[in-house]
Amino acid sequence: MQAENLLADRTRNMGASAIREILKVVSRPGTISLAGGIPAPQSFPMAIIREITEAVLQKYGSEAFQYGLTEGFPPLREALAAYLETKGIAATPEQILISTGSQGVLDGLGKILISAGDRVALEAPTYLGALQAFTPYEPRYVQIETDDQGMLPEALDAALARHPVKLIYLVPNFQNPTGRTLPMERRLAVAEIIQRHDTLLVEDDPYGDLRYEGTPIAPIKTLAPEHVVYISTLSKVFAPGLRMGFCLAPEPVQRWLVLAKQGVDLHTSTFDQALAAEYLFGGHLGCHLPKIIELYRPRQQAMLTAMDRFFPSSFSWSRPDGGMFVWVQGPVGWDMEAVNRTAVERGAAFVPGTFFFAHPGEGKETLRLNYTMADEATLSRAIKILGGVFEEGAKVFQKGTSSAFRSSSMVSARC
Amino acid sequence: MQAENLLADRTRNMGASAIREILKVVSRPGTISLAGGIPAPQSFPMAIIREITEAVLQKYGSEAFQYGLTEGFPPLREALAAYLETKGIAATPEQILISTGSQGVLDGLGKILISAGDRVALEAPTYLGALQAFTPYEPRYVQIETDDQGMLPEALDAALARHPVKLIYLVPNFQNPTGRTLPMERRLAVAEIIQRHDTLLVEDDPYGDLRYEGTPIAPIKTLAPEHVVYISTLSKVFAPGLRMGFCLAPEPVQRWLVLAKQGVDLHTSTFDQALAAEYLFGGHLGCHLPKIIELYRPRQQAMLTAMDRFFPSSFSWSRPDGGMFVWVQGPVGWDMEAVNRTAVERGAAFVPGTFFFAHPGEGKETLRLNYTMADEATLSRAIKILGGVFEEGAKVFQKGTSSAFRSSSMVSARC
Repeated sequence: MQAENLLADRTRNMGASAIREILKVVSRPGTISLAGGIPAPQSFPMAIIREITEAVLQKYGSEAFQYGLTEGFPPLREALAAYLETKGIAATPEQILISTGSQGVLDGLGKILISAGDRVALEAPTYLGALQAFTPYEPRYVQIETDDQGMLPEALDAALARHPVKLIYLVPNFQNPTGRTLPMERRLAVAEIIQRHDTLLVEDDPYGDLRYEGTPIAPIKTLAPEHVVYISTLSKVFAPGLRMGFCLAPEPVQRWLVLAKQGVDLHTSTFDQALAAEYLFGGHLGCHLPKIIELYRPRQQAMLTAMDRFFPSSFSWSRPDGGMFVWVQGPVGWDMEAVNRTAVERGAAFVPGTFFFAHPGEGKETLRLNYTMADEATLSRAIKILGGVFEEGAKVFQKGTSSAFRSSSMVSARC
Repeated sequence: MQAENLLADRTRNMGASAIREILKVVSRPGTISLAGGIPAPQSFPMAIIREITEAVLQKYGSEAFQYGLTEGFPPLREALAAYLETKGIAATPEQILISTGSQGVLDGLGKILISAGDRVALEAPTYLGALQAFTPYEPRYVQIETDDQGMLPEALDAALARHPVKLIYLVPNFQNPTGRTLPMERRLAVAEIIQRHDTLLVEDDPYGDLRYEGTPIAPIKTLAPEHVVYISTLSKVFAPGLRMGFCLAPEPVQRWLVLAKQGVDLHTSTFDQALAAEYLFGGHLGCHLPKIIELYRPRQQAMLTAMDRFFPSSFSWSRPDGGMFVWVQGPVGWDMEAVNRTAVERGAAFVPGTFFFAHPGEGKETLRLNYTMADEATLSRAIKILGGVFEEGAKVFQKGTSSAFRSSSMVSARC
């Protein structure tokens, strides 16, 4: 049958995922991939996984395998309330909603809030998964300008003054893809702006615990609790394969999210929720998190050191205090998709930054590097390869001759 | 903030779930609930769960906790291809898509196929979860008449001739809520009809393995593979809390389902998929399924025997060959929501059948009974209580006096 004829209008917007194709190419043997966005398997608490599993079987027995409440497994909601308190966020267990990955909250918010044509404001660049969650609900994206310290509050204020916006999406800590963190003064400004415009902010915080330098900054949720949906996940501090996300939303939003979730998956895996509850209740996160940080900090350091040494002076990049990514900006006019094809041939790969912009064709001269999935020596080797490719391209550009790396449509840098 | 003002247009259709309120009421202590739709915890393979977990940790290690492919964990897709072969369904592992519960496929199909106003045809009555999955995408429902043997093919044919229909949804085996099974001759007729009209059929088969009498009937998927999305789940034969669903769809539909799923939850829990793969590969399903059947068969028998004894002659009901439910039809004019309130006061509860109809107000004289969650003696006691309530109501009705059980809007019986 001609199944394409059956597709809903919204499906035409969803498009094929170009980044998936890139990730397939770069996973070929012999290529060092800095393209992924996944935690190192060495960061998983495998040493205690049998202990946790046994504790769950002892404590909950068959209950851990039965249907559960859409809102979440009560012991996990209780453990997460205590966890959020350590971040200064006051929440009762009943206010917490468990989701199948934080992706589940993003989809739910899109479903309950976005009618076709509604405006969604987000950072330029932003998390690709948020675009994938929202796009099927057919919003118009309003990109908010950013600099080295993340979203510019005055740009947000101006955007909200111009048009009604259904929701604002931002990642305040060690953002994906830039690694940037929104400083306290900007958080205060954003909190004031969203309250003044009475607009909902989605504060997505998957990386906050992965801080290698400096001190934590209070979530915006603590500054404007009635206007913020705070989202997080255990993917980066326990195990991503368990798909364990959660959120704390204003009461009416939570109520509608629960209703949407009933239609999407009834509830998140009870067994996985019980494992997560045991991980938190057993105090394992407190013991294990420093190990994750000590795994990643030297990797980030090794990569930044190699970048200082091997990248051309015409390139600039972020120096994040935590997280999983470094954002690189090449000279205006470069096309990093073309550069990546050459880099892959030489044995190293990255993600072209253009995929992280809501509007196609922007950020062609940018790219994202991940440092969690390779050891220090491998990272240095990959950066040396990339540095060689960049130097070569820079020489060709300087001569003014045509270059395969040149962007066909010149776009101005956004960040 | 006034979060209600933020809601998308579609959210207004989602409405509060009346059945959830009913399930809360009937879970009060001292009430025997025949209202649920969940497997007995005694049906879970708890005796081998440690063995399976250990096998997963040995075989896959940290891989079982890492991000995975949206399409599903390869060993599980392989195991399910072999499982489907036992049902006569030919599938390669690559053609199988894993979902977070079969609910995940229903939501995905709604998302990729249903534009607002599109027609969806389904049995009257139908599975409530399908309505919850499809309704947010704003379809118009076309109810297809049913009798004791399920959907009437000629009614389906007439509906498809009248209007274009985006998809047809049916549960062919031991349907929820009726327990009815579509016989082979009707499956052949449905297969011919969907091919002639070039319409997509969603064949949802969660209960097929729970057969207590007779022999299995070939899935419609085997009769019209290019026009059928076959959906099933391990919820009824392994553990519902693991949220392990899957589907086999025509190639272009599967491709779009994968894209939709990326935005919804990235992928289903890797660990749970690995447990499911091990359950199937280890031959545990083959050993354990007969135990589940031997648990449920006498429960169903006890309930039907008690119904024969205690229910008034003006009532009729299904006698399913398997599954989890019996469907009861009371006299026209009764309002089973009112009856249930009285029954709960006397200590037994059911689900009023009206919730299983796409159009509000239909099926007021019907109800659904579940027999998996209580032992034989408890089931008999509950049926005796319900029989007493029904007999009492019947006497009041016969006298022609006003009755609290009388439906305010008389509707004709649909099944």
